[in-house]
Amino acid sequence: MNSASIPASVTVIGLGNMGVALADAFLKGGHPTTVWNRSADKANGLVEKGAVLAGSVREAIAASNLVVVCLSTYKVMQEQLAPLENELSGRVIVNLTTGTPEDARKTAKWVSEHGGQYLDGAIMAIPQMIGLPETLIFYGGSKALFEAYEPTLKLLGGNAAYLGEDYGVPLIYDLSLLTMMYGAWYGSMHAHALLSTANITGTEFLPYATNWVNHLIAPLLTDPVAARARDEGNFTTDVSNLNTNKLGLEHIIHASQEQGITVEWLMPLLTLATQKVAEGYGADSFDRVIEAIRKPLVK
Amino acid sequence: MNSASIPASVTVIGLGNMGVALADAFLKGGHPTTVWNRSADKANGLVEKGAVLAGSVREAIAASNLVVVCLSTYKVMQEQLAPLENELSGRVIVNLTTGTPEDARKTAKWVSEHGGQYLDGAIMAIPQMIGLPETLIFYGGSKALFEAYEPTLKLLGGNAAYLGEDYGVPLIYDLSLLTMMYGAWYGSMHAHALLSTANITGTEFLPYATNWVNHLIAPLLTDPVAARARDEGNFTTDVSNLNTNKLGLEHIIHASQEQGITVEWLMPLLTLATQKVAEGYGADSFDRVIEAIRKPLVK
Repeated sequence: MNSASIPASVTVIGLGNMGVALADAFLKGGHPTTVWNRSADKANGLVEKGAVLAGSVREAIAASNLVVVCLSTYKVMQEQLAPLENELSGRVIVNLTTGTPEDARKTAKWVSEHGGQYLDGAIMAIPQMIGLPETLIFYGGSKALFEAYEPTLKLLGGNAAYLGEDYGVPLIYDLSLLTMMYGAWYGSMHAHALLSTANITGTEFLPYATNWVNHLIAPLLTDPVAARARDEGNFTTDVSNLNTNKLGLEHIIHASQEQGITVEWLMPLLTLATQKVAEGYGADSFDRVIEAIRKPLVK
Repeated sequence: MNSASIPASVTVIGLGNMGVALADAFLKGGHPTTVWNRSADKANGLVEKGAVLAGSVREAIAASNLVVVCLSTYKVMQEQLAPLENELSGRVIVNLTTGTPEDARKTAKWVSEHGGQYLDGAIMAIPQMIGLPETLIFYGGSKALFEAYEPTLKLLGGNAAYLGEDYGVPLIYDLSLLTMMYGAWYGSMHAHALLSTANITGTEFLPYATNWVNHLIAPLLTDPVAARARDEGNFTTDVSNLNTNKLGLEHIIHASQEQGITVEWLMPLLTLATQKVAEGYGADSFDRVIEAIRKPLVK
């Protein structure tokens, strides 16, 4: 074995369930792995597998060129790392902590100002999925830096997706996918509350829900022709326009209220649709509402 | 041909795009078809194909045992039919007008009080899909009545789903599916507004959205094990509990606000999640929120 084939030392800071899974994946990949956590006992299982528990965050950063950070919040991360800004020079910080796009951009700037290099990432998986070839992790920052560390980062999730120079973009993708999930999920919960008013079980409803999700909702959200039209500012439609959808929302709100179902979440949708209709876009597609979501609601 | 093989006369009241499609499907099925609409010119195409245009709603009802009604609203329907309550005796009214579950229940009662029989229905299709074997139409009312007319009704949509005696249930299913659609759709629009803050196009985002919809959102909404657990009042979870989802919603709200995105629709979701956590259900599944959707929001 020549020295070039010895995997480089890596450090993982933060040993929540996700951090433990990340360190575990590096160990499995043969990397000498240094770990650190505020509560040292979280490291026990990893130390048994060969990880080195650093005595301080300072030691942890000093141990490796590549430092992967996965803490509970950016606030916790700042508390831990701010006193160590002089240790960042020459280090590559890959930050997988969940936060806002602005958090990521500010942290990148701070690391850079202290001589470090930075990638921000967003893990689209639960800890059990870390290390699998299909697991998706988004990255943003310097392309050359990403490519230099790509083989190592792929140990964490084989689907390592580079999204460009903007450090905030991985978290924007993350937020966008999460928001899609919560919209769909809450719509389904509203549906189940409605069904319960007539004692209809979820199991009875399921065959129809499944057919609807697979043949209407999924195609609606993933249509490449609609995506391209929207990107080009083309809001023509021959299916259901904003006027129709405004009526549809009014109908759902009225009927839900009649059944004693809370509709607070639907009112802003109707307000935005009403606003775009008032602006003269009633014959356009419902996607016109996207413009209004970026502006304060007109009440 | 013996007389038993001659299809029975049918009547269609209301010739919007949907009503025209319904009458057309009956004509194609060989039924002598009488039609009526407030604006008679809507019947022109159907008359060319052999339909009889009635001179009044009274004549239209008198013409057939089976009377299919598809008007713009229940209010319009009441205006048209209320003066004719003495004509309902012996008639079978199949009402495919969109309305609320209570509208359907009240109308069923009114028809029954005047000696008619009633089925309520909800068409889960656009007019272009009427007459196809896979087209789904929900029906509620007497099972014997539905079965007697099932072959005829299947001309309108081959997937004629009988949902039980409760006349309101077809519209509850309809509302439930529509609400699922609007939740998913709005979540996606919020996502696209977020993406636009970093000039990310829908086309760039699409591969990730598609993967997410197919592998996370669709399974989340259509899991038979989760449906059965919910039906049984079992809210245990080993994936993401209410505490986690409350944090997730807080994160999306905070990060979206930072990007100038309206979050009014998300606040009620957080309020309901917060309420259920305060009630001690933080370790339960997010589906606990369904209980709160049926009660007034605690502010």
